[in-house]
Amino acid sequence: MDIDLNADLGEGFGPWRMGEDEALLDVLSSANVACGFHAGDPVIMDRTVRQALARGVDIGAHVGFPDLQGFGRRPMQIDVQELAAHVVYQLGALAGLAHAAGHRMTHMSFHGALGNMAAADAALAEPLVAAVAAFDPTLIVSTSASRAIEGAATKHRLRTGITFLADRACGDDGLLVPRKLPDAVIHDKARVLGRVRQLLEDGTVTSYSGRRLQMRVNSILLHGDTPGALELARTVRAAILASSARVVPLSRQLA
Amino acid sequence: MDIDLNADLGEGFGPWRMGEDEALLDVLSSANVACGFHAGDPVIMDRTVRQALARGVDIGAHVGFPDLQGFGRRPMQIDVQELAAHVVYQLGALAGLAHAAGHRMTHMSFHGALGNMAAADAALAEPLVAAVAAFDPTLIVSTSASRAIEGAATKHRLRTGITFLADRACGDDGLLVPRKLPDAVIHDKARVLGRVRQLLEDGTVTSYSGRRLQMRVNSILLHGDTPGALELARTVRAAILASSARVVPLSRQLA
Amino acid sequence: MDIDLNADLGEGFGPWRMGEDEALLDVLSSANVACGFHAGDPVIMDRTVRQALARGVDIGAHVGFPDLQGFGRRPMQIDVQELAAHVVYQLGALAGLAHAAGHRMTHMSFHGALGNMAAADAALAEPLVAAVAAFDPTLIVSTSASRAIEGAATKHRLRTGITFLADRACGDDGLLVPRKLPDAVIHDKARVLGRVRQLLEDGTVTSYSGRRLQMRVNSILLHGDTPGALELARTVRAAILASSARVVPLSRQLA
Amino acid sequence: MDIDLNADLGEGFGPWRMGEDEALLDVLSSANVACGFHAGDPVIMDRTVRQALARGVDIGAHVGFPDLQGFGRRPMQIDVQELAAHVVYQLGALAGLAHAAGHRMTHMSFHGALGNMAAADAALAEPLVAAVAAFDPTLIVSTSASRAIEGAATKHRLRTGITFLADRACGDDGLLVPRKLPDAVIHDKARVLGRVRQLLEDGTVTSYSGRRLQMRVNSILLHGDTPGALELARTVRAAILASSARVVPLSRQLA
Repeated sequence: MDIDLNADLGEGFGPWRMGEDEALLDVLSSANVACGFHAGDPVIMDRTVRQALARGVDIGAHVGFPDLQGFGRRPMQIDVQELAAHVVYQLGALAGLAHAAGHRMTHMSFHGALGNMAAADAALAEPLVAAVAAFDPTLIVSTSASRAIEGAATKHRLRTGITFLADRACGDDGLLVPRKLPDAVIHDKARVLGRVRQLLEDGTVTSYSGRRLQMRVNSILLHGDTPGALELARTVRAAILASSARVVPLSRQLA
Repeated sequence: MDIDLNADLGEGFGPWRMGEDEALLDVLSSANVACGFHAGDPVIMDRTVRQALARGVDIGAHVGFPDLQGFGRRPMQIDVQELAAHVVYQLGALAGLAHAAGHRMTHMSFHGALGNMAAADAALAEPLVAAVAAFDPTLIVSTSASRAIEGAATKHRLRTGITFLADRACGDDGLLVPRKLPDAVIHDKARVLGRVRQLLEDGTVTSYSGRRLQMRVNSILLHGDTPGALELARTVRAAILASSARVVPLSRQLA
Repeated sequence: MDIDLNADLGEGFGPWRMGEDEALLDVLSSANVACGFHAGDPVIMDRTVRQALARGVDIGAHVGFPDLQGFGRRPMQIDVQELAAHVVYQLGALAGLAHAAGHRMTHMSFHGALGNMAAADAALAEPLVAAVAAFDPTLIVSTSASRAIEGAATKHRLRTGITFLADRACGDDGLLVPRKLPDAVIHDKARVLGRVRQLLEDGTVTSYSGRRLQMRVNSILLHGDTPGALELARTVRAAILASSARVVPLSRQLA
Repeated sequence: MDIDLNADLGEGFGPWRMGEDEALLDVLSSANVACGFHAGDPVIMDRTVRQALARGVDIGAHVGFPDLQGFGRRPMQIDVQELAAHVVYQLGALAGLAHAAGHRMTHMSFHGALGNMAAADAALAEPLVAAVAAFDPTLIVSTSASRAIEGAATKHRLRTGITFLADRACGDDGLLVPRKLPDAVIHDKARVLGRVRQLLEDGTVTSYSGRRLQMRVNSILLHGDTPGALELARTVRAAILASSARVVPLSRQLA
């Protein structure tokens, strides 16, 4: 079994930092880089791209709502065709910085409220994924399990990498449960690790309601902005290597 | 003689518009599109790209300081390596929207205070132009006469298109004189047209101090945000066609 | 009958303008000034305050979502206590500029999506209006008919001025119908004027479905950003003066 | 001897934090609160104001350039009358939040590049300080030693509190030396403490060039965003109390 290990990086802005990006890059096979709308700026993006390149880590665009103050976590109602232009703008900006640095953008994912909304609404997911395909048909769409996004990717002939969010509870439909619910974000490191081990062992995830869901995943997403994130990332990586699996980026899994 | 006719377009933001972009596109051979830093947003950029494509008009990135409120006209002291990342971000964003729409970005230029500072300072121009070359070595740098920018473009093997700003006075060194000086911006349409005719006839420009400068230009830049801009643009185009010159975009002149 | 004539002013940003503010000020008794979140910036606010002061026109804060690009018209889900801080910030900023210029802020109103959401949801209106009262208990809340906002103002002992939006259709409940519905925004000047005359004559408004609603209003809101807005404003003012009514700002009506 | 102990607080934005604000508040007598232009947002400002109120700590407005990405540290050339409106806007916003929370704003100071530029240029300092006086003539201007700012405050009858930046080197003229110079920012805790002790003992400061300058100060400014800042703040406070001095806010020193 091959599995990608990825995290959302470059989530600072101007003078502010979030997470221990550089140390995390030593553990990951892919990084999802904020593109300046919910977090990130040209300087941080450029630095993240170059640090990823130096370690042979894949990069992808993590696209979000234009809402730095809300970190892209506040639902916004934006015309879907206008949103499609926002998505392409962000893809282009990161691809440009990657290209200028000699790196290559392999994938994209939707961040925060935009991600939750697109995952639950095919009418939103479809035009956004169409815009991704129009920008670059070789990009991989990285997403937690979502019929809406996976369906749109299939329709537009984009490859999909399914990500398991080890520290976020999911419902029986596989979608993430809202952050505001108790225990939606799993802070206990042992439980997060337990979920990873269960996934590696029998390919299942236990839902918020306690059901065991079969889940075929290509990658595990770690969050870098919580205390102890780096240590957890190392432990998860060790757990993967201790099983029969290998850490392999999406771009090589789906080649 | 071939000459490009270009203007800065897409200079609105959100609900606000500036200039009569769509009508101007019928007159131009190239458009310099604001990339969201001093003006423009993804929606406006996308619309401008598609309107230009529909009329066969070339597009380029008009990159500026990150200062919407000041329209990129306020000098800012930003570390030059950080600025280089800002330039690439903007190039990538517009190139992405162009690519997704089936269009192609052929050139770039610096806007406002960034343009004035780079035109006068080789230490600033050089790393910014280097970043342009790293992003795409086929891009043409469009600039008013500037030893700093032309030298940097030559060093990094980028083609340069020299633009004549018909409604902006220039000093004896060919550089634009500051906007704040009286008559730095020429509002009289007849005078603007006279300057264009003089350039077409004998290849000279009369400087702010009254000297006749020889100037080899590839294009004429019209401003679209002044009253009567559209009519002036049509008159200038007619004056070009009435002379022995043709209206040809930079990308075909320098091919 | 006394009636206030007001409009939303200062809705530009940086280099961009919206509407003919200065000419409108000659017609109005009150101006609702954008506070930098959905439109406006310190320079525009300062200018608008001073122009209003010079003409003896009342000013109020027009507070909106933090979304310049969307002009505050895109619904955003923001924690209501956080929103309350956004409201006070905007009130304080305008009150500060007014105070420094020797003017006084007499009222406030909610803009765009924030206004629509608060008008329809007491759970949102109540804490926002509470924040207004905590900031200044002498402020008048200016609002189109809304049980939610009027109830909250009563609870927090704030005076309310009910505004009639002459060019926006309302439902049978008196709330504005969504902009996206056909004819929600009434562009025909004769119809707008007819609605004003009907209101002045018998105190009624005809709803979107055709019902005649009794409506007790203190003011008429004119939009300044549409073609012909200034001429319409003058006609409406003349119609008021031709009836038995006088143009009197809220602050003197409710004194 | 009475001395104020203050720090710049509320320097986060949206999801990002800077410094250990809440713990620092237990050590300070005054807090300078970022107002949303170079850092801070309504939510953070509101929280900071309420935390200061709960501890009886004075608050002041820390006003800066409109440049979140550059944290207000990048020099910008903005028309001085426009800047004056920016200053008043920020003062009003914080005063509004303070008032709504039942607290009171006692002072103001200039941040970063704006502070450095105003401290060195009377033509800039004068209209900005005039705007402060127009907003509220009872505000205290808190500044490191600067003839320009002190002179402007005297002219406009504002009280001035002179602040000693314990961890920033100053030139023989008392002005801060640029951050970029080696050792301009003093990271060694023992040296910072030594400078405070010297000031308390004989009222002198050793300049960057080694000269001993007499300096009459009302307050000591601590930076909260460096590692070990909290511990240093506690040590400085203890050093003050161990000398014959008392920790007293500017508003009571200058009453």
